[in-house]
Parts: sequence; structure tokens; C-alpha cells
Amino acid sequence: MAGNTFGKQFRITTWGESHGKALGVVVDGVPAGLPVSEEEIQRFLDRRKPGGSRFSTPRKEADAVQILSGVFEGRATGTPISLLIPNTSQRSSDYGEIASYYRPGHADYTYDAKYGFRDYRGGGRSSGRETAGRVAAGAIASLLLKQLGIRVCAYTKSIGPVACEGFCEEEIARNPLCMPDADAASRAEGFLEECMKQSDSAGGVVECFADGVPAGLGDPVFDKLDAALAGAVMSIGAVKAVEIGDGTAAALARGSESNDPFRMEDGSVKKASNHAGGILGGISDGSRILLRAHIKPTPSIFSEQQTVNRNGEDISIRIRGRHDPVIVPRAVVVVEAMTALVLADALLSNMTARLDGIKNFYRV
Amino acid sequence: MAGNTFGKQFRITTWGESHGKALGVVVDGVPAGLPVSEEEIQRFLDRRKPGGSRFSTPRKEADAVQILSGVFEGRATGTPISLLIPNTSQRSSDYGEIASYYRPGHADYTYDAKYGFRDYRGGGRSSGRETAGRVAAGAIASLLLKQLGIRVCAYTKSIGPVACEGFCEEEIARNPLCMPDADAASRAEGFLEECMKQSDSAGGVVECFADGVPAGLGDPVFDKLDAALAGAVMSIGAVKAVEIGDGTAAALARGSESNDPFRMEDGSVKKASNHAGGILGGISDGSRILLRAHIKPTPSIFSEQQTVNRNGEDISIRIRGRHDPVIVPRAVVVVEAMTALVLADALLSNMTARLDGIKNFYRV
Amino acid sequence: MAGNTFGKQFRITTWGESHGKALGVVVDGVPAGLPVSEEEIQRFLDRRKPGGSRFSTPRKEADAVQILSGVFEGRATGTPISLLIPNTSQRSSDYGEIASYYRPGHADYTYDAKYGFRDYRGGGRSSGRETAGRVAAGAIASLLLKQLGIRVCAYTKSIGPVACEGFCEEEIARNPLCMPDADAASRAEGFLEECMKQSDSAGGVVECFADGVPAGLGDPVFDKLDAALAGAVMSIGAVKAVEIGDGTAAALARGSESNDPFRMEDGSVKKASNHAGGILGGISDGSRILLRAHIKPTPSIFSEQQTVNRNGEDISIRIRGRHDPVIVPRAVVVVEAMTALVLADALLSNMTARLDGIKNFYRV
Amino acid sequence: MAGNTFGKQFRITTWGESHGKALGVVVDGVPAGLPVSEEEIQRFLDRRKPGGSRFSTPRKEADAVQILSGVFEGRATGTPISLLIPNTSQRSSDYGEIASYYRPGHADYTYDAKYGFRDYRGGGRSSGRETAGRVAAGAIASLLLKQLGIRVCAYTKSIGPVACEGFCEEEIARNPLCMPDADAASRAEGFLEECMKQSDSAGGVVECFADGVPAGLGDPVFDKLDAALAGAVMSIGAVKAVEIGDGTAAALARGSESNDPFRMEDGSVKKASNHAGGILGGISDGSRILLRAHIKPTPSIFSEQQTVNRNGEDISIRIRGRHDPVIVPRAVVVVEAMTALVLADALLSNMTARLDGIKNFYRV
Repeated sequence: MAGNTFGKQFRITTWGESHGKALGVVVDGVPAGLPVSEEEIQRFLDRRKPGGSRFSTPRKEADAVQILSGVFEGRATGTPISLLIPNTSQRSSDYGEIASYYRPGHADYTYDAKYGFRDYRGGGRSSGRETAGRVAAGAIASLLLKQLGIRVCAYTKSIGPVACEGFCEEEIARNPLCMPDADAASRAEGFLEECMKQSDSAGGVVECFADGVPAGLGDPVFDKLDAALAGAVMSIGAVKAVEIGDGTAAALARGSESNDPFRMEDGSVKKASNHAGGILGGISDGSRILLRAHIKPTPSIFSEQQTVNRNGEDISIRIRGRHDPVIVPRAVVVVEAMTALVLADALLSNMTARLDGIKNFYRV
Repeated sequence: MAGNTFGKQFRITTWGESHGKALGVVVDGVPAGLPVSEEEIQRFLDRRKPGGSRFSTPRKEADAVQILSGVFEGRATGTPISLLIPNTSQRSSDYGEIASYYRPGHADYTYDAKYGFRDYRGGGRSSGRETAGRVAAGAIASLLLKQLGIRVCAYTKSIGPVACEGFCEEEIARNPLCMPDADAASRAEGFLEECMKQSDSAGGVVECFADGVPAGLGDPVFDKLDAALAGAVMSIGAVKAVEIGDGTAAALARGSESNDPFRMEDGSVKKASNHAGGILGGISDGSRILLRAHIKPTPSIFSEQQTVNRNGEDISIRIRGRHDPVIVPRAVVVVEAMTALVLADALLSNMTARLDGIKNFYRV
Repeated sequence: MAGNTFGKQFRITTWGESHGKALGVVVDGVPAGLPVSEEEIQRFLDRRKPGGSRFSTPRKEADAVQILSGVFEGRATGTPISLLIPNTSQRSSDYGEIASYYRPGHADYTYDAKYGFRDYRGGGRSSGRETAGRVAAGAIASLLLKQLGIRVCAYTKSIGPVACEGFCEEEIARNPLCMPDADAASRAEGFLEECMKQSDSAGGVVECFADGVPAGLGDPVFDKLDAALAGAVMSIGAVKAVEIGDGTAAALARGSESNDPFRMEDGSVKKASNHAGGILGGISDGSRILLRAHIKPTPSIFSEQQTVNRNGEDISIRIRGRHDPVIVPRAVVVVEAMTALVLADALLSNMTARLDGIKNFYRV
Repeated sequence: MAGNTFGKQFRITTWGESHGKALGVVVDGVPAGLPVSEEEIQRFLDRRKPGGSRFSTPRKEADAVQILSGVFEGRATGTPISLLIPNTSQRSSDYGEIASYYRPGHADYTYDAKYGFRDYRGGGRSSGRETAGRVAAGAIASLLLKQLGIRVCAYTKSIGPVACEGFCEEEIARNPLCMPDADAASRAEGFLEECMKQSDSAGGVVECFADGVPAGLGDPVFDKLDAALAGAVMSIGAVKAVEIGDGTAAALARGSESNDPFRMEDGSVKKASNHAGGILGGISDGSRILLRAHIKPTPSIFSEQQTVNRNGEDISIRIRGRHDPVIVPRAVVVVEAMTALVLADALLSNMTARLDGIKNFYRV
């Protein structure tokens, strides 16, 4: 149990159910002096908010964040920052019948198997709404990264079979699918319309990079930077695969193709290519960190499905309620948030790696 | 720092460099009463041992394990089990020149960036030899799983472009590539011979399943069972992607294809398919757990490469020494070990999920 | 940093400043099925509430707790329980001048030394109000202990030089000092009146016992049950010493006086005495757990004191505002809460100690 | 379970039984570049070694430490340092009969209650020999502290009723009881002779201070510096009470006596007294850290005692074997080691407290 805390030095604890009174997160280990405001956090939350397009659930949630502690006169005090997001649009009536059966592809059955019963309203804690706390905390992590010259950027790489070919960062915010390629976005919208007509849903891939990460972050062996990223991203509901750098393609390459040659540039060690995705031996190498998350289709589909109920009977169901036909665009900011959280934690952890750094810090 | 410990309840701490006096692991949290012997652990280590075929490094290491504590009269006492594996075949002379430059695809540069200097002999802590401790600990985890009716099995799914089509479990131990398909193994050997002729190396995919895992393991949110598996497997050097169940294919499917219908079988809830790989909402669903690790080619290749030295000069190098042209077959038991460690930990953690289970345990 | 989380399996994270919007706690790892209600938690909080007598600060706080998540239909769901306690009586004006100087015996200087600045209103996070979250979480831990037949009871053992001689449990709730001896309470009140007349403050001792704790709780070496209790109790502000069993008196005894002989009673192993305080080798022995916390006098006194200000000048100050002349009675429920939290965590952790217990749990 | 690991950033894991093959410790998180040698560690171990005087067990152990990993060319590499101490003087025959009964004051019964069986040879893991690993690790922590200008010093404050009055640091190493007062040491020796004649044993108090600790170490709330010290010191077997600063005396004082006035000295904030023992609000205040550990008499006494055996029968026993009549002098270096470990960890953890410190570190 007790799986609701993430990170070591920069550590978050999320709480809250889809249809409870509120959701929230406690962010511990934020360095004192960091400028933090509700506005900055809200900007992140707004990117995750439902109701933004015809490809997301019509549930309307303001997702208005409140800072309850840990910030004084606009700066973090070093004590825990508690963030609260009230739930305002609970239509529990939609979910009454979920109490009695197990939706395929959902966590209804496994929660019952583990806990003996569950808060069935809207998936309870297994709902995608759980990610609101992650995103709010990720906003604070991003504020810290920004102070250190690091920028994290995530976007939709593909929806079903439709993949981006070009990359225009400004485009990401312009289309409802968060794709950096307007043409791909347009084709993906067509594909999604088709899925919706068939009462079906789609998956896709989120890609995320981080620039400005100094070489040396991450700890060898179990706390490798790529291991931390993989665990963090796989902990997002519906993610079924995580790749770093070339990812699955690396397994098909030869060593001579996969190795990135080092070379000097402006007096610094750089790499001529980046098949590794910015991480060697679990430690950042100073080049761009690159990862991809593969996300399964929304399991809530409106066509008929076979399942069982709590009485142990085979039944046919049709799911009702408000559901996203694709969650990939809303997962973009969640992947970005988890990446930012891992990097913030790695930056703090790394400060104790060397005696000379410690002596400098304590001026001895 | 302090990244050499893995697990919460079933917790291991590994130590040791490639060319130091010894390697080892401390396994804490082993339930008292578990039968443990050096023989059982040795069987696992022998599967990882180098020198087994022409596709692995000719370095000969007995990798003979000693139990130094925590076992009394053949059974675990509940106190930490310390395992020691002496290093016997250190030819450090091969590595002298590595001290002065950064091998592409290796951790030489990043260790220097992080720590300011490094034990350059054979890669030090970043060497594949580090996994000996994981495998020894994984052997103990497997002994625990066996007591609970759980079996983990890993094998080579593909080498470069050559993938298994059939599955014959007995075959895994019969060919040096640990493939469950004799025909694929034969073709993969041909492919590897070709790579070696070109002084090049190959990657591949390890697949791993676990049968007998009860429904209910894993904790929601950050400690999802799939998140723990992804982090564990990605922490193995050279792994660049991890998939659960359908993995990357899930992102291409539609919801109606990806969902696994539930159905009753012999009075139990079962699934008609297993696209999910045995995990829903981060919690095991009682079906087979399935994952894949994508492994990059060995970075130590014998052809000429461009890199830089510690003086900041661009140079050309040719790596010498003893290196595996493919590490995938030796990684098989490492993936199996990490999977076993995650499952052992999840089994122990899960015991406190429900009040009724706790009351039964304490007989109140 | 990140020091606001306590416990492993039963884990709490507290947040909130004295004069912020609210205080709260997230309780993770509560077993599903445990009956939990705001009423039960409120009963604990009311014991800590200020304004109860002339010996506590006149600040009035309702300390009304709200459950925001993790409880469904009156029972814990196994997901985190978020508890919120709004602050309602902030008279920050009292604290304006604290911003500029360091109160002796307080954390003003050390917070500034650590964080560079601080939320000076009412001591911010270093205020005794911080313990509200601990008490709310301790209430839930106590509910769990009650289900397992364990009862924790704390009381004031002494105030300044006035110590209890008799013990009447019912008396604890009858006098404002929480002493189990009416006569001692009466004398202690006289002593406190005297202190208050002199603008001074007093300290004292809280004693706490737990009955019904099964033998076998606690982990050898660093996580000994007494070590966990000592750390937990010493983490309460103003505690300067912790004793287990005979405590400091043990150092004066001889082995023949200190050892507790074992003997059989009704077929069970019992002890003829309990100098050890219920713990041997860091593991509970089935007899009463007994500890004492020594608490320093309230540092906020109304007489003139010497100190320095933030400009580095020596100054004389007189503290104003609302302060308890003795915090011992209000600390009673905090010591009880921390003891309950440690025991709840130890009960959960202990379930994985033996293979036979695990096999029984999983019915294999 | 899994209670054999201590610390967060500077983290140790100990293992080994009294009569197993060896004992040891893995020290993780040692900053790269720290000079470390077997000689320096051995100096600490020699202070704990048995057989030094007629007041300690005649068991002779070389306690010769070997560094197996993590040190290269005389400096820590940043990877785990594994230390091994072979057991050489196992006379298990002395302990055969312990298998069948429970020694009063020992952990025999509680280990059986927890684990179902135990390694009964010499107390197994509950033996005082377990502290060898702590001391070896504490030696490395002390090397780090020394680099930062911090010095930890422990000594025997009292044996039974005989307390030191004077303080001469050089004297500590001159008498077998490690007392800083030659006269008290002489009287304590007389007292111990008397105890031994009566087949009895004695307890006492160890005091420990740390000079040079900068203000700002320790984290508010649960990870207060005093809480960490109390937990660390109470985790040493036989410790029954821990005091910080004035300790138990603080509870008897008035606020006007207990508060330490601040004053400026040479441009720095100092305190005119140190009742607090160097810690305010859980954070170091720059003055001397001071603590005391109260240690019970050795439970192994040679007079007749009542107890029960594993068959549940009341019996009389006389313990044989080699036992210290007082363990206090041998515990001195253990208290010093645990204090050093806590301070080393706090120093590393503290580096991330402030944004300006982080920006300086990363030169942005």
C-alpha cells in the first residue's frame, strides 16, 4: 500500500477520487525561495482540463487550484505546499450501474480483488481525474526546472495509425490533439470521427523531450534516470510501453549504428547523434532527453461488451456516461508533468554526488 | 545518490565493481522459514555466467556464490542474507587505456561528469557484471514465489531482425541464445556470426511472463505493478524500451480490440483475452503477467569509432578486451530476476490492503 | 527536505502553517474496510483543541475536520484519506514584530538559517498547530488498533516538580491538566498559577502505555520498535527526552534488578515484571508498552528576554500574543497519536515476517 | 521487515550474525572523492573490539575490516562501499543450551515470537556484535564530517551510580571505561569489581557531542534532527532513554531558565547558553549538539534466574559463556558512530533546502 507518494527529495503525495469532494496533492521538498503562484499552476491544469474539444469528455470541470500552505509572499517557504482542486461536476447517477459489474479494460475488477469493495463513482481513484494532482505538482517542478534553464515539452506523436511527420512546436497548442504537425492533426481528427461513429475509441503515442539537462543526473543501478522516467511514465493509467531514445528500434540496430560518437564542440564534450536519448549508463549525458509513452485506447466504449457482474454472472453491457474517445491529448501534459517531477528530483539528488561540490556548498 | 537499493518489503542492496575484489548483494526482508541454499542461487547465477558460448565474452568467471548471513539450518532467519561472489578473472591490463577516453555508448563520460573520476577497470560499477547481485537476489525471490505457486519465465524473443515464431519452453535451455524456437535460434546464430565478422554487435528483445500471480497485487497510482516492472526492467543496463502486454501495439488498436472481455470460468472471474498483460489499473488481474525488454546492441564493438579523450581532444579508437557480441541471452535471467523481485515485493506489500485480511492474520 | 511524511505501510503526510488557510494530513495505507468517520477523528482533535482552560492559549479554534477522500459509505477504501482542518482564528497582527527578531527557545532563527526566510505568522510550520494533522491521523491509527484489540492511553505524569502518585484512568479527562491523579492535578494547578503570575512557563512529562500489543512487533536493528517510538515522540516539538520502560533508571540498576523473569501463565509466556517496557531486542514481548516524553517549558514567556534581530543587533524583547503557560496537557493526545501511528505501522509491517504467515494469507 | 537500512542520502545496510561467517555493511551515498582507507575504519573498530580489559568479554576478535568495493586509488568512487569483517572466534558450544530457553532481558523470546525460530548462537543478529557494521560505517561518516570541520566525541558519562564530574578529553582513551574523568573512572572500576563478584552487571550513560555543525541542519516535523538522533541512538541495543541538551531536566525547569538568549558574537548569531543542546525546532542552531544515551545493565548475568523454555515449562537457569559485565564503554563508539551517521545524512539532505543554493551549485 501507500503507493500515492512519488519522488525522494522532491516528493509529491496525491489524493482524491473522481466523484469525491476534491482532489489534491502535497508537494514536499520544494526549495525555499522558488516563486510559486496559483496562476502558474492553473496554466498547467488548464491543459489537462476536460471539455476542451469534441474529442474529450463533455464533463465540465473548472479544475481551479487553491494553494493552502507552503507559499508565503509569493515564494515557497520550504514547507509542504498543499494544493486543492474541488470537484464540481459529479454526475454520480451515470455510474450507479458500474457498482454491480466489471467494465472491460478498467480497474473495477482488480480494485474489488484487492480491496474487497470500491468507490465505483466514475472509477474512484482509478479515474483519469487522479492525474490532476500530478499535473499541479508537475507545474511546480517545471517552475524549478525553468530556474535552472531546463525546459520540458510533450506532444502527441501519433493517434492510432496517424503519426506526425513534421515538428512545429507552436502548432502543439493550436490543434485539439496537441500534435506538432497540423496536417497529421487534421488526418487524426478524421480518424477519430470515424472511431466515434463506430462507438469505438483510439490510442496513440505521446513524445516528450527535455532540453538543458546538465550531464551527470541520475544514479547508477536501480535509480538510473531512464528507470525513474520509465516507472514514472508507466504509472500513468493506460500507458502500455515506454521508450527512451531510439527505444524499440535500438533492439534492431547494430552497435555501429546505435553508438553515438563523442566529439568536442566549443570546448565541451558533445555527441554527434542521440540514439541514446540523452542517457548513458542511467546518467544524463548533456544532450536532449527523449522518451515516448504508448497509450492504449480509452476502455470506455459505447458498443456492446461481454463481462461479468459481482454475482458472478456473464452479462452484456453498454457503457454510458461522459468519456473521451481518445485520452492521448489530455495525457500530454501528464507525461510532461511526470518527466518534470523526475528531473526535479534527480537535480536535487545529484547535489551530493561529489565531495568537492559539498565542500563548495558549505564553504569549507 | 544511494541508488543501489531496490524494493520496499523485499529489499536488495547490490555492490561491487567489475574488477574489484568481489560483488555481492544484501537481501533484506526475506520471510523467516524460507528454504534457501547456495545451490539454488548458483543455478540462477550459472545462467548469467559468461564464457558459455562463442556469443559471449571469453572472460571466465566461476561466479561462485557464498551465503554469509541470514540462513540457519537451511532456512532464512528473517535477518539480512548477505551473498558474496568473488571476482577471479580480472585482466585490468585490457582496460588501462579506457581511463583516458570515453567509449561511445558506454557510461565512461557520464560517470566522469557525475563523480569527477571513475574506476575505469572494465566499466567499474556500470559493467554488466553488476547484474550478478541482482540475479543472486532474484534467485531468492524466485524461491519465495515458488512457495506461493508463482512461476516466472524469461527468454530471448528476438535477436536483431530474427524473431521467434513458435514457443517451446524446453528449447530455451538448449540453445546458447535462450530462444524458445530452435529454428529462430539457428537463424539468429547465423545473423550473429555475420555481425561478428564485421566487428559489429547486435541487440534484441527479452520476453518474460509470470503465471500463478493472484489478482490484487500492485498499488494504484505511482506504485502500479506495471510501473514497478517498467522501472525495474529499465534499470538493467542497455534496456531502451519496456512493454506490458500488447505494449506499443496497444497504441495502434481500437478500444473494441484492446479491451479484454471478462467471463466466468469454474466459478472464477477470468478474461477471454489478455491484451492487458495481466494488469488493469496497475493491479494484477489474475491472468498471465507479460512484459518485453528491448535491448540495444553491445556498445563495445571492435571497429574504429570517433570519440574524445579526457584532455578534450577528438580521437579515433578501437576497443579491445573481451566483450559479448550480443548481451541479450545473458540478460534473460536478469529480466527474470528483476521481475521476480518486483512480484515478491508486491506479494508482501499487498498483505495489508484489507482490514479483514489483517484481522485474520492476527486472529482477532 | 521532504520531512513531512511519517511511517512506511501506514504513512501520513502533514501540511499547513499556523496562520495559513488550513492544516491537514494525507493518510495513506489505511486498510480497506476500516470504519472511519469525521466524528471519531473530531473526538481526538477536541482533546488537542486550544481554549479549554485557563492553562491554555485563549486562541479559539474549532479545529473542525473534513474528510475529502478515501472513505466511501463509512469505510476506508484503501486509497489515501485526505483530512482538512480550516484555520479560523488567525490574529496575525500579534506576530508582525516576530518577523524582525528571533524568539529565544523558538525555531525563528533556525528556520531563517535553513531557508533564508520564513512564514513568521505564529511560528508558521514550527507552530504547535502543526500537530493537528498528527492527531487527526493518529485517530485513524487508533481506530485500526481498536479493531485489533490494542488500546493506547496517554496522560500527564508530571508538571514541573508536581508528579502523579496514584493512577485513576477516569480522572484523566476530568481535570484540565490530563493527570490521572486528582490530588496531583490540584497541586499542579497551584504551581502553574504561580508560574503565570511570574510571567513564566512550565514543562512536564507525558506518559503513554499500550495494552494488547501482540509479541513480535518491531524489526531488529535500525527499525526497532523502541527506536521508532523514540524518533516519533522526539519529533514532537519541545520534547527533550524519551524513555522506554524504566528509562533513565535502568542505567542505575544492576542486571539482576533490570531483567524481567519469564514465566508461564495460562499456557502463555509472560513476564513477572516489566522493567523493559514491553520491548526486548527492539521487538514487542506481549506485555504493556510504556514510554515517557519529557517536555520543556513553553518558550513563549511574557517576561523580558535578550535576543538579536535580523539586522544583527542585540535587543530586549517582551513577547505578546496568545500562548499556553504549559503545553504538556495539550501534548498528551499528540504523544498518544504518535504512539498509535508507530504501532499501526509495526502491525502492518510485521505481517510479512514469516513464510507460514504468508502462505496462510494466500491460502497456498 | 527490511529494518537493516539506515539513512536517506548517506545510507547504510548492515548484515551478519554473531556466530556466522562474517559481519558487514554496505555504505551507499558516500560522496565521490572522499579519502577512505581500511586503516581509518580499523581505528574505529578497534575502539569497539572486545577483549580490551577485564570489564569486557574475553572473546577475542580481530575485527579486521576489508574494503571490497567503492574505493579506487584511495578515494570513494560514489558507488557503494562494501565492508566485510570476518568472525574468527565462534565458540558456539557455549550457546547450545540457549536454543531451548529464553534468557531474561534478551531477545530470544521476541525473535521466536516474530520469526518462529532463530539463530541462537550468541544471540545471532540481536548480539552486540551487530554494531560492528554500524561502527565501520560510522568511521566513513566521520571522515566526511572531518572534511567539513565537524567533530563528534562520545564518552562514558556514568557507570551505575558513579558519574563523571570533570571533563578531560585526553583521559577518555586512557582508562578502560572511556570516562573523561580519571577519578570517576577509578571509582567506577571499583563498583564494577563489586558487581562482578556478585555475578551481577551494571549499566550507565554515554554522552556525545558534536562541534562545528552549521546552523540549518535537520528537517522540520518528522525528520527533525533531534528525532533522527533519538531514533538512531535508541536503535542501539540496551539503550532505554535518550536525552537532547538538558533532557529530562528541561521538564523540571521554567521557561525563563530553559530558554537560551541569542546574542551577537563576532558578527554571528550565537546563544548565551545551550540548554537546547544545539537544536531548535528540529534544526541545528550552530552551537554544540549534545545528547545522552542511558544503557541498561548487561542482561547476561551469572547468577540464577527464572525463565521458561520452548516447551513452555518454568525453569531456573545459569547463563554461561563470555559476557561483558558492563557494555557501556564498548557502546561509546557505537553512539559516536550513530551520531556521525545522522549528521552526515543531515548535511547531505540540507543542500537542497534553498533555491539560491541550488542555483549556485548548478552555476545558473
